[in-house]
Amino acid sequence: MGARPTNVGALGEFGLIAALTARLPQGAGVLLGPGDDAAVVAARDGRVVASTDLLLAGRHFRTDWSSAYEIGRKAAAANLADVAAMGAVPTALLVGLAAPPDLPTNWAERLVDGMAAECAAMGASVVGGDIVGSDVLLVAVTALGDLEGLEPVTRTGARPGDVVAVCGALGASAAGLALLQAGLESGRDGPDAGHEELLRAHRTPSPPYEAGPQAARLGAHALIDVSDGLLADLGHIARGSGVAIDLDSAAFVPSAALEAAAVDLDTSARTWMLTGGEDHALAACFPPEVELPSAWVRVGRVGAGEGITVDGNAFAGTAGWDHFR
Amino acid sequence: MGARPTNVGALGEFGLIAALTARLPQGAGVLLGPGDDAAVVAARDGRVVASTDLLLAGRHFRTDWSSAYEIGRKAAAANLADVAAMGAVPTALLVGLAAPPDLPTNWAERLVDGMAAECAAMGASVVGGDIVGSDVLLVAVTALGDLEGLEPVTRTGARPGDVVAVCGALGASAAGLALLQAGLESGRDGPDAGHEELLRAHRTPSPPYEAGPQAARLGAHALIDVSDGLLADLGHIARGSGVAIDLDSAAFVPSAALEAAAVDLDTSARTWMLTGGEDHALAACFPPEVELPSAWVRVGRVGAGEGITVDGNAFAGTAGWDHFR
Repeated sequence: MGARPTNVGALGEFGLIAALTARLPQGAGVLLGPGDDAAVVAARDGRVVASTDLLLAGRHFRTDWSSAYEIGRKAAAANLADVAAMGAVPTALLVGLAAPPDLPTNWAERLVDGMAAECAAMGASVVGGDIVGSDVLLVAVTALGDLEGLEPVTRTGARPGDVVAVCGALGASAAGLALLQAGLESGRDGPDAGHEELLRAHRTPSPPYEAGPQAARLGAHALIDVSDGLLADLGHIARGSGVAIDLDSAAFVPSAALEAAAVDLDTSARTWMLTGGEDHALAACFPPEVELPSAWVRVGRVGAGEGITVDGNAFAGTAGWDHFR
Repeated sequence: MGARPTNVGALGEFGLIAALTARLPQGAGVLLGPGDDAAVVAARDGRVVASTDLLLAGRHFRTDWSSAYEIGRKAAAANLADVAAMGAVPTALLVGLAAPPDLPTNWAERLVDGMAAECAAMGASVVGGDIVGSDVLLVAVTALGDLEGLEPVTRTGARPGDVVAVCGALGASAAGLALLQAGLESGRDGPDAGHEELLRAHRTPSPPYEAGPQAARLGAHALIDVSDGLLADLGHIARGSGVAIDLDSAAFVPSAALEAAAVDLDTSARTWMLTGGEDHALAACFPPEVELPSAWVRVGRVGAGEGITVDGNAFAGTAGWDHFR
């Protein structure tokens, strides 16, 4: 018996597919998992929620800043959060991997392990995929979800008078990225628990998946995943709903870790909270009479008009990401 | 008013998304189309069929050999055929586009037009997507489908005694590709209707989508989309089902166009039929008592044992595609 080929090109397409699918546990909602022309997944609601994302090495992740396992967790999280942001429960992921032939087999395996782990927390499964040799390393992820009888919560239903609330972290991923860019993984005086918390938030964000269906049950008028930055994503709601949104700056209280990192980098923690993407917090507009669970923080108010303001003023800062820039 | 930016980098991510989604008609099964965190698609059966593919410029398509519209049609067809190969009716596509910033906007628009056209024929829709700037041109496609109450037909149910049958073209796409590779778009004596037919098969294959649910209704034991080549794909069924398959060479009758192209290129039309992928014909194993509709051609028989033979012998030829090679 020879040793197993250690890179994906030597292992070949079918060998790699076999190696990866063997690592994928299949949950109860998977009626047919990987290995056929297509997977079959339960869609008990009679409607299926579906979203797709491309993640490119060097742009969406860096293999020298995150492990394959972390990149897998994060790629899954970004897509599962999109499903949660419709008010749905994620059920399945499909994964396309474009990889240079010299990619270590173990790297691809750990990527898939990370995806499976992120899915498992909510009973979802990686049910299928495709692999192609390529000059670039790219991960294409499609997530499916089930509405469980709830109506989908879109970006277009916000109404003047609604309360704007956020569930989940804001700015932590952006701060972690800024620390990596500045080479400040450790603090200026050695290991720093706060910095490590932010790096962890950047490498493996923890979207509040359950808050999506919760918002739908509470009657949210609009719901979005904060991936481009809160101002930019609330801008999508404002434009889609034909309303204005004013945020209350006092509602944005940086964590100690965020504040300390901002001091180290001579920047503003609040700007990270308002413009940093990739924490995959959820932002929602609720009717004013809704009693918000404690995980939801009131951050502003919907009004008539258009545009996003902070304390009534335009915010001077980066408004979000354009993936061609 | 300035002229519209003519490449996707200048137009930007959000501008391009808006330009593309405006071109996408949404069918009756789409409950929420592009523009939100995720799409919502009817899944009346209570199960959803899902498959994903990556298509890379230079490997799966060439922009100098096919138009953007043709590439869009073909990318959609490959995925929709995977859904049909489970016995399901395709309902929706999600599309990820990784594109160099200098890609003409019009190219991306025509790609999407092609996908929408291929979907429309069966009532499916392009319901969502993602875009990223990249050094390579890559299309990630995920297809969804509905089983309409039928049981999915897998690769693992073939039984000794079953009849092997094929619906759809075999070898035409491979012959068209070989003509392009040889620079023989026209015949040796000028325009050639047969060559044009094969080029068309390569650029815009016509999978027999309806034959998938038809095979399920007829009680097929196994069903697969011929994408790697008939021998390779029947090999998947044989391994998955634990059976042997013997093909009858007399059942593979080349078309006049295929025969003429084989003469021009000094090769074998039958080898194209047995090993050429990408026509997206469907191959199935039926119980012997099933009366096959005329679109299905009997090509062989399932037996006990393992492996694929032709007239009882191993076939000496390329057995299919490995996408890392």
